[in-house]
Amino acid sequence: MKIKYEHVLPMEIEKRSFEIISEELVRRGIRLNPELEPVIKRVIHTTADFEYAETLTFSPDAVGHAMQAIRDGACIVTDTRMVMSGINKNTLEKYGSRVYNFISDEDVAESAKKNQTTRSAACMDKAAGLNVPLIFAVGNAPTALIRLYELIQEGRICPKLVIGVPVGFVNVEYAKELILKTDVPYIVACGRKGGSNVAAAICNAILYRMDETRGR
Amino acid sequence: MKIKYEHVLPMEIEKRSFEIISEELVRRGIRLNPELEPVIKRVIHTTADFEYAETLTFSPDAVGHAMQAIRDGACIVTDTRMVMSGINKNTLEKYGSRVYNFISDEDVAESAKKNQTTRSAACMDKAAGLNVPLIFAVGNAPTALIRLYELIQEGRICPKLVIGVPVGFVNVEYAKELILKTDVPYIVACGRKGGSNVAAAICNAILYRMDETRGR
Repeated sequence: MKIKYEHVLPMEIEKRSFEIISEELVRRGIRLNPELEPVIKRVIHTTADFEYAETLTFSPDAVGHAMQAIRDGACIVTDTRMVMSGINKNTLEKYGSRVYNFISDEDVAESAKKNQTTRSAACMDKAAGLNVPLIFAVGNAPTALIRLYELIQEGRICPKLVIGVPVGFVNVEYAKELILKTDVPYIVACGRKGGSNVAAAICNAILYRMDETRGR
Repeated sequence: MKIKYEHVLPMEIEKRSFEIISEELVRRGIRLNPELEPVIKRVIHTTADFEYAETLTFSPDAVGHAMQAIRDGACIVTDTRMVMSGINKNTLEKYGSRVYNFISDEDVAESAKKNQTTRSAACMDKAAGLNVPLIFAVGNAPTALIRLYELIQEGRICPKLVIGVPVGFVNVEYAKELILKTDVPYIVACGRKGGSNVAAAICNAILYRMDETRGR
């Protein structure tokens, strides 16, 4: 056995992980913008992939906008159940917020079939009918991100934040570039990488940041 | 806009993604073992990370063992809800199987507190009480993998397959090396990388392989 066991108490594991990430960022000569640091580090924590320090792209004050939106009653819409499953619901509910995911809804399946699109894209249309401010967390389907872009352009939806981190090989980079062209606040992982775990990590980083700055 | 839109029908996106992955593997000079190919390609599909072509490590006939185990009634135990959420339950149920996850159980929280361990590790103890053959899919917690190793060594559990792909910085590589030392069938992502999405992708790759080879 070459690798030694490091004794860390269960409740200290996350703290120790973030220390290791910070040390390794210094070793790699990467200095993060303090405002973006909690999000970038949590994504690295979730993926063990330091590439995200280079690829995560933020519109000005994206994190601040998102925190204010949740305080003002914004809810989160996800493209997959896995993103929904990864978001810390206890923390979210503390702020009176909740997560919506429509992927299993009968009407979404029907609308996707009718419009020859994916169910994830049809979910965005359904979200346009919600009467609350919305944050979109897209971790899987570029088709959802493209449809979201169209709905923004048509003025049918005005997200408080778009977390655009789908992963894959077909139109993923294209979909992300569309979001970069909009005027809405965004956090986008440029390139092919991303995923449901990345989308959930970004949501949680924003929520934990709200906890940390509460009452300041 | 530098990146062009590729017109692909919704139901063709996955097929096209796998074609791109295959082409890129050839370009990188990587030739996969045909038996392991469906699993490795699905993990790359889920992560857009070609590193997994190098780091995924399989015990002999791990995929075959897993397929036979599910046919013989094996169920899947996961360390997080996110892994559970990512597994294709429709396909799994077709084979009379199901997924167990105990992370939210009251008795698991109590046992974790009592034993100063994580809830994920306590889930493994609870799984030892199940009276069916089991496949373990660990995508998050190295503590779960370490506890699983101990239970294997104590003869209290004999998994049909261990999917050992936790991600992170504290004892993750250590935990994976323990599993490589056992006699049980395993699929392990060596190094720090892995995740709930990777664990779910491996489960789904096995299930889809069962569909493809059905009746042969």
